[in-house]
This record gives sequence, structure tokens and C-alpha cells, in this order.
Amino acid sequence: MRIAVDVMGGDHGCGVVVAGAKLALEASQDITELCLVGNENEIQFALRQCRLDDARVCVVPASEVLTMEDKPVLGLRKKKDCSILRAVELIKDGKADALVSPGNTGGVVAAATIRLRPLAGVDRPGIATVIPAPNNDFVLLDAGASVECRPLHLLHYAIMGSVYSQQILGYARPRVGILSVGTEDVKGNELTLEAFKLCRQVAAKIDLNFIGNVEGHDLFSNRVDVVVCDGFVGNVVLKTCESLATGMFGWLKQELTKTPLRKAGAFLAREAFRTIKRRMDPDAHGGAPLLGLNGHVVIAHGSAREQAIKNAIRMASESVQHRINEIISRQVAQAGELLAASAVVTAAAMA
Amino acid sequence: MRIAVDVMGGDHGCGVVVAGAKLALEASQDITELCLVGNENEIQFALRQCRLDDARVCVVPASEVLTMEDKPVLGLRKKKDCSILRAVELIKDGKADALVSPGNTGGVVAAATIRLRPLAGVDRPGIATVIPAPNNDFVLLDAGASVECRPLHLLHYAIMGSVYSQQILGYARPRVGILSVGTEDVKGNELTLEAFKLCRQVAAKIDLNFIGNVEGHDLFSNRVDVVVCDGFVGNVVLKTCESLATGMFGWLKQELTKTPLRKAGAFLAREAFRTIKRRMDPDAHGGAPLLGLNGHVVIAHGSAREQAIKNAIRMASESVQHRINEIISRQVAQAGELLAASAVVTAAAMA
Repeated sequence: MRIAVDVMGGDHGCGVVVAGAKLALEASQDITELCLVGNENEIQFALRQCRLDDARVCVVPASEVLTMEDKPVLGLRKKKDCSILRAVELIKDGKADALVSPGNTGGVVAAATIRLRPLAGVDRPGIATVIPAPNNDFVLLDAGASVECRPLHLLHYAIMGSVYSQQILGYARPRVGILSVGTEDVKGNELTLEAFKLCRQVAAKIDLNFIGNVEGHDLFSNRVDVVVCDGFVGNVVLKTCESLATGMFGWLKQELTKTPLRKAGAFLAREAFRTIKRRMDPDAHGGAPLLGLNGHVVIAHGSAREQAIKNAIRMASESVQHRINEIISRQVAQAGELLAASAVVTAAAMA
Repeated sequence: MRIAVDVMGGDHGCGVVVAGAKLALEASQDITELCLVGNENEIQFALRQCRLDDARVCVVPASEVLTMEDKPVLGLRKKKDCSILRAVELIKDGKADALVSPGNTGGVVAAATIRLRPLAGVDRPGIATVIPAPNNDFVLLDAGASVECRPLHLLHYAIMGSVYSQQILGYARPRVGILSVGTEDVKGNELTLEAFKLCRQVAAKIDLNFIGNVEGHDLFSNRVDVVVCDGFVGNVVLKTCESLATGMFGWLKQELTKTPLRKAGAFLAREAFRTIKRRMDPDAHGGAPLLGLNGHVVIAHGSAREQAIKNAIRMASESVQHRINEIISRQVAQAGELLAASAVVTAAAMA
């Protein structure tokens, strides 16, 4: 399979991304071609630096970079030759099967949505983020691609998240819930209440293990595997969790280094902290897929280092292998038919 | 001052609430009357049990209880003689200055809103929750009173939260931010973008230290003291934080008890864990005020024990002492005048 990597736009520059690509190539023979998209000189320099000399590598030049400071749509309009657009075009032109970018998230979403277009029947792509929890890692989506959603979008996110969880994370029958203010069916706002009805209506017939509403309390207590919400709520929840986890670790460190006794204790128990840190390592997944488009797109963290890039590339290639877009398409189409049929029945009943 | 306490409806029964009331009476001479509202027999029994014999105590009978399982509005319609309604009526009738209830949150919000009505100029009351963070405790509102909001409601929440933070938490100039998906002025959904404009327009003139948008990453890194959002987002964020903190402590405990070595380390460092646990203790604040109504209402956690009830009563009495409703009223009126004046100017300019 052929993977395009936007090597510009990450926080640590082109060299780190190319080095990550090298790790990915070493780890997988499934990759038949890996296109590095960006400034040609920088890429050639990086290739020499990390001694990457693999016949599967090709370089696709792009003279501009969409930076973290650029406004997505405006920036893309101005920078026609930016690496993210060039990388997306490789997919559009059938020259690549998947794309990884550690660039400006809004820019990747805009470029991919505009050029690749959503899958048939899907309106909005969604960013699926895997969040580590003590007993089960869960998928949260949308984590910020679409801040205003309609109920049907949430149904589609439920489908996308469920397929992703099954195919990539290996959950046999992921529990899918709508994030709300309480677990009862009647709890929620207009958006979630309507989305709840849609999910309930089609779930049994499209292999969606919809468990109803979940609330914040359920997230870290192994009660749900796919958490569905609009991109505003998802983005707030994701960043709040990152902030709280970092805050708590910092706080713990501060308290544990206050006295020699505590320091000694922390030293003895260090493996406990390391285990948790390892499990919570954002690099483990490397990136978050942007689901629902004609093409496989993985958004790596801007601060992604070599291992994270390698894992993001692995994730992209697994998405292609498991044909998750085909499965999502099929389920979205089935759901659409079921809803249309029930609308006909309702209309007939009311006539 | 006279405080009404709904002693029914908490998870631990009437006895715990009455015992908490005793602690509050012992701690404060400012309380001139404390009305215990609920089942008379149970209250008399609890008074004897905890040997509370104080001339300031009065018992107000109520034959019914709105349970956690009751639907708020429906339940209130059926149970006309329930303790929360009776307690609210004491405020409405001028027989109490403030109310504390550990009951069904939705029920307290509904009963208080229907009977007391919002302050002039205010549409929706908001629940203000104090969330402990490593370097500053911040106020989050609305934490769930109103799941669908309009921009003006968020402006009012900004005012309420700021006043509460100043008067009760002692922040001289609390930093007030709107919770959004990024800190830039243009980030957000329709609701937050409009609310942003309203806050920016009036902030300088009404003593509101509005710092603009904040995102999830800012919450636990001492960048904001009052976090404003609609009740849906607030409820999700609050419960997610509780879930993650509990999950992380549980996980830590699990890892720290896995080997004798780790156990020994944890024992040596135990004071570090205790310090954090103490600071994160939900009982420290005891309850969350329901702001924006004609009357001071504090909603205690359903699981509140004696200390939490005592602290909730203290919080209620401080709210009365600091006349926070008067200050909120004044600032809401000022903001309303400013917005009306600018609307006149805009209309004139467009004529």
C-alpha cells in the first residue's frame, strides 16, 4: 500500500517526521510506497541525516507550509502549493491510499474535506481520538472536526467510531454511547435527544451495539467503548482530560519531591508511576483518524516525535487494510435506508 | 440569618443531614434560626440521636420526599408536600434567607426556579461548581441547570461566576473565560461566539475581568478562575473530571499495591497522596450554589456527609452575608443597559 506523509507543519520539523517514516518502513513490508511531501531540500537533508535509503521512498515537492498560526480555510486559499494540499491530492489522484499529517488540525480537516469529499451519505467527517482509561481505552468522536452538529451526524459518528473500534482497536462488540448529562433516555439537549432516537431506531439492524446515553462519570469506569458527541463537546472533553491528567501528574511530582522521605518512597514505587505513564502515553496511538472521507487520513499530534509518527503510519495502513471506509459506507447506507423506510411508514400513517 | 435545610432526599438519610446542621450551628453564631424541613418523626429522632438541642432549631413538617428517581417537574407536580418545595416556600414567604438541599438536583433547580423566579433581567439560573486545581480552584458554571442556552445566558453566568468567585472564594479580580475549542477570538460554536461578543462589549464597564476564550487545556493550569459554558457542556466537563480523577487515583492505588516494594514506597510517600486527596475533597465546599434566583440556594451533593452539609450551610450563610444576589442583580442590570444602549446606537446607524 502507498502512504503519503506530510512531513512539514509538525512542531519538531521535517527531520523528526522523516525519521518516524523510517521506523515505519522498517516495521512494515505492507508499505509498498511512502511519499514524503514537503520542501525537497529539507527532505533530502533529513533522508541523509537519518540514513534512510529505501527504494519505497519517493519525494513529492511542495513549496509552502500551512503553519499552526494559519487560519485553515484562508491559509489553504493562499498557499496553493502547501504540503498538506499536495499530500491530499495524492489520495485524490489515486496515487496514495492513506495520508498522515502532523500539521494544523483545522487545516488537515479543511484540506481533506474539500478535496476528498465525505463518503456517500456522510455530511461531516469526525476526528476519532483514543483515550486511555484504566481498564479500557475508549474512542471519543468527534474531537473537533465539526463544532455544530445535527442529530444524523451523531448517528454517523456512532457508526464510524464503532467500526474503528472493532477493526483497529480489536473490540469485538464495542459499547457505543451518546455523551449526555445523565444515563436516562430522557436526559440531554435537543441534539442528543434526537440523535438517541436515530441510533436506537437503526442499531439492532446494522450491528451497532448502542447502549444509550452515557455521562461523564462513565468515561473512566469501563462502561463505554465509543463516546459520541459533537466536535465542540468532544474537543472540550479531550483537552480537559489532557489538562487534568497533566495537572495531576505535575501535582503528584511536586508533592512527592517535597521531602527526602517522600522522594525515597517515590523512588521505591517508581515502576507504578512508569506503568501508568506508559499506558497514558499519547504517542502509543500516534494520531487520530479523520473518519468519513473518501480516503484514509490520520492526524498526528503537532508535537509528534519519531515513535508517534511511526504509530500514526501504522494506524493509517491498518485502516486501509481493514477497509474501514468501505464498512462505514455500507453501514451508513443501511442506516439511511432504514430511516428513509421508517419515514415513508410514518408519512403513510399520517396521510 | 435564617437558613432552611431540606433534610430529606440525601443518600444517607435525614440523620446525617441533621448532624451536619448541628456542626454548622456550633460553628456559627450568625445563624439565628435553622429550619429543618422534612418528616417530623425522623427529624425528632435524628435530633435526639445527635443530641442537638439548640433554641435556634425549628422543625417544618413535610410529608413527602422527592427522590433521586423522581422526574423533577413531574415529581413536584405530584408531591405537593415534599420537603424541597416546603423549604423553597420558606424563602418565598420571607421566613428564611437561604436554603440548603442535598436532594435531587433537577428537583431543586425546578422547585427553586418555579417558586422563587429568576432575578430581574436573568432568564436562567446557573449551578456554580468549584473545581479544585493544583494552583487555583476555579468555578465552572453552568454545571447543569440549563442544557440549552442562549448567548445572553452565558453573559449572565459570567457575571454570576465572577461575583461568586470574588465574594465567596476571595479572588480579587477573577479571570473569567468562555469555554471553547481554542483560545483565539474566532474559535467556538454559534453560542460561544455570540456570548464572546456580549462579554467583550460590557466587561470593562461592569468590573468583569473577561479574558476571552479558554480551552480544556487551560482548566488545570492556572489560567482561568471562572469557566463559563452552557449546562450541557458544564455537566459533561464536571462529571468527566470527577471520573478521570477517581479513575487515576484508583489506578495509582492498584499499581502501588502490586508488589511489596511499591507498597513500602507508597507508605513512605503517603503524606503526598494525602495532601492531594485533602485538596480534592468534594466535601470542602460542600455544595454548589444555584445562582440567579430570588433567594440563596445551595445544592449539596446527594452523597454529602456531616462535614459537607456543614460547609454547604456555611456557604449559604456567606452568600447571604455578602449579598451576592444584590451584586449580581446590579451587574446584570448594568450589562442590560449597556447592551440596550448599543442596540439603539446600532439601530440609529442603520436607519
